Amino acid sequence: MLNYNLDEKNKYYSLYAAIRGDILAGKLKSGERLPSKRALAENLSVSVITVQNAYDQLLAEGYIRAKERSGYYVEEVNADYYGGCKLTPRQTHTKEEFAVDFAKGSTLTEMFPFSVWSRLMRKVLSDCGEHLLERVPCDGDAELKRAVAEYLYRARSIDVEPRHIVIGAGAEYLYGIVVQLLGRDKLYAVENPGYGKIYSSYIINGARVTCVGVTESGIDCAAVEKSGAHAVHFSPSHQFPTGAVTPVCERLRLIKWAAESDGYVIEDDYDSEFRLVGKPLQCAYNLCSDRVIYMNTFSKTLAPSMRMGYMVLPPVLYEKYLSIFGRSACAVPVFEQKTLAAMLDGGFFERHISRLKNRYRAVRQAIYDKVKTLPFPAEIIDTGSGLHLLIRFPSAKSDKELKERARANGINVMCLSDYLLTSAPVSDKCAVINYSGVTERQIENIVIK
Amino acid sequence: MLNYNLDEKNKYYSLYAAIRGDILAGKLKSGERLPSKRALAENLSVSVITVQNAYDQLLAEGYIRAKERSGYYVEEVNADYYGGCKLTPRQTHTKEEFAVDFAKGSTLTEMFPFSVWSRLMRKVLSDCGEHLLERVPCDGDAELKRAVAEYLYRARSIDVEPRHIVIGAGAEYLYGIVVQLLGRDKLYAVENPGYGKIYSSYIINGARVTCVGVTESGIDCAAVEKSGAHAVHFSPSHQFPTGAVTPVCERLRLIKWAAESDGYVIEDDYDSEFRLVGKPLQCAYNLCSDRVIYMNTFSKTLAPSMRMGYMVLPPVLYEKYLSIFGRSACAVPVFEQKTLAAMLDGGFFERHISRLKNRYRAVRQAIYDKVKTLPFPAEIIDTGSGLHLLIRFPSAKSDKELKERARANGINVMCLSDYLLTSAPVSDKCAVINYSGVTERQIENIVIK
Repeated sequence: MLNYNLDEKNKYYSLYAAIRGDILAGKLKSGERLPSKRALAENLSVSVITVQNAYDQLLAEGYIRAKERSGYYVEEVNADYYGGCKLTPRQTHTKEEFAVDFAKGSTLTEMFPFSVWSRLMRKVLSDCGEHLLERVPCDGDAELKRAVAEYLYRARSIDVEPRHIVIGAGAEYLYGIVVQLLGRDKLYAVENPGYGKIYSSYIINGARVTCVGVTESGIDCAAVEKSGAHAVHFSPSHQFPTGAVTPVCERLRLIKWAAESDGYVIEDDYDSEFRLVGKPLQCAYNLCSDRVIYMNTFSKTLAPSMRMGYMVLPPVLYEKYLSIFGRSACAVPVFEQKTLAAMLDGGFFERHISRLKNRYRAVRQAIYDKVKTLPFPAEIIDTGSGLHLLIRFPSAKSDKELKERARANGINVMCLSDYLLTSAPVSDKCAVINYSGVTERQIENIVIK
Repeated sequence: MLNYNLDEKNKYYSLYAAIRGDILAGKLKSGERLPSKRALAENLSVSVITVQNAYDQLLAEGYIRAKERSGYYVEEVNADYYGGCKLTPRQTHTKEEFAVDFAKGSTLTEMFPFSVWSRLMRKVLSDCGEHLLERVPCDGDAELKRAVAEYLYRARSIDVEPRHIVIGAGAEYLYGIVVQLLGRDKLYAVENPGYGKIYSSYIINGARVTCVGVTESGIDCAAVEKSGAHAVHFSPSHQFPTGAVTPVCERLRLIKWAAESDGYVIEDDYDSEFRLVGKPLQCAYNLCSDRVIYMNTFSKTLAPSMRMGYMVLPPVLYEKYLSIFGRSACAVPVFEQKTLAAMLDGGFFERHISRLKNRYRAVRQAIYDKVKTLPFPAEIIDTGSGLHLLIRFPSAKSDKELKERARANGINVMCLSDYLLTSAPVSDKCAVINYSGVTERQIENIVIK
């Protein structure tokens, strides 16, 4: 007769678990008859109900079967692969700390208007109440789409139908949707050197990717035309890491290429808000809303934890998007969407950008000032856009030596060549100074030994 | 000489926009020399600085070029594809309203403990403050992962390392990650009849899918073994729409198949919380954590707007996940993650589930009671799990007639055959009664004419 020590507080479950364990361990064999409920109850000094509940659970999960007027029998359970491997301990990475980090691409979260944000959140919470529980359409909350369209008009002179905007959980998420819209079998051209995450996002999403060089005037249009690509992903207003700006004639050339080959131009406008000299550059979407997919994110402008981005789709692609994703829900919680809409509508976002720009202008100036004091030649290459610039050190022996010397002085920096996705000719001895997460004080304190 | 009416409030920008427009329209031809800054300033009665700013912007965007000591010239700008098509008006769909909808799969959002949720949100907002702005690791907030692991232990007796949990923006998002982990070139077996969104999610993510029939004991294991699939996606505790429960011997058979073919079993535990009779069924993950990917979502249990789900990965796959996504950020905002963690830790989630279960038991009972009063034969097929059951109407002429008659009585319902992904034999005259969004009152008020 089965004999178990049962947990007093949860008799039925511990009886069920004990019998289950014996079946899986092969102690109770397939076809074996279990004791009657009454007999087992007596043997274990529990109620018949307890045994009944345990047997019912075993029955429901298929460990045993009941034969009418005969009793309960162990099912045929093949437990060859029951159990799992032992866990491997996690490897911990030790991170080096630098006094100044030009490679991290973080943002100044202390500048984030947290009190405004949390006030707006509280307001959304009490204003919208249970409406926050409603399903959000796949392309995002209508209020936020309207607010983004108005913002784009104010800030970037982009005239866009709110409905063609798609809200998504960050840039990488949107790249995935683009691949699904344009086709996984298609070839995508990306900039080289470039932002590795763009390249890897397309690869992760199963698309084929070809790398195209970058000249002083941005992506090499002739190479795109020859590439056989279906779509080109580029940042015409401020290429990372070269900083190149694509002039309008090249933008139009790419649009012509796209129109004639039934392809698309994906405009990644990731840090256009931060043109520190003059007005922001006009975007490519404005030139042809039929062939350009415009993309931007709030991760750089608000906080990296804010996984929210958007894209503006050409009308044909928007209809296709609805036909594929129409029944899905938006991945961004409606709560964040409504809070951001309130932030845009209230002008808080633009005020925040303007404070950030002032701050970054000061950081940029500190870099210019510091470069003048260096005891070796250094040439700044800067187009006044975005949050990074290049410094060329002609007297450095190599990129490797340049980085090592910087690190010895507490500075983490990458070179242009570090951003090559495939080997290609690129200026050497060029440090990429990404100053989005750096303060003036840190720059001022730099002492090169 | 160029002559424009400039916007008094924004002279430089309107001058820039006017010249840009003329270049794109071909009125200013490539190579044409622009008037000198001084001359244009005099002509337009504006300051030289205004013209300078406008020219600088045109220069930065590549519309014009500067020749030293000579002036500004229009660049070669090919505007063949400038502009976009006119927008097509959106088509509006009119939705039919039903007194009772058994096809919608909505949830009772009025049951959501909104006051608890908003109180926890406010608490997270003040407790965490600016920490909410920090980047969330790809697999989710550590606090939520720990809370989910503890909840799984309490509610489902699943013993899981918190670190093997991956938090994602809803079930469909997680399906996409699974495809990236296991390979897009692989074949995935899904249940037929089944939940169309699972099938389409794999397709959207570029994977190949094969449909496998469902028997009374869940997915047809023999068919899976013969399918050549690399992974099988199934809901062993409560299949949708048949309601079948896969017995443990079949689960172990699939695990054996997976282990021997180096494949995986994807266990979709989507409504296991709602076993209305007895304890929840033990999950397949417990049988072998090396070969089973366990998945669940909070959309059914909290609210559809809450795009939050999670999966537990076998250790090998978790390491692979880190190597692919380690540098990405989690798509779910940290704010929602911390609020949910507080809800789980405080026991509010389980209290909510228990209230929902009582409610659904009453709805289920109302269905049983109503069926007894029907003026024609009706047979309930129900395993006591989840939020749907089947009712077979042997006297109905066809599925079509069954649905039409239901609709004529204000009831929206689908048949088992409507959930077939590819044609397969399936019981006919079987209505799928999804009661997750239905109240007792609605059931009681049903009058069949």
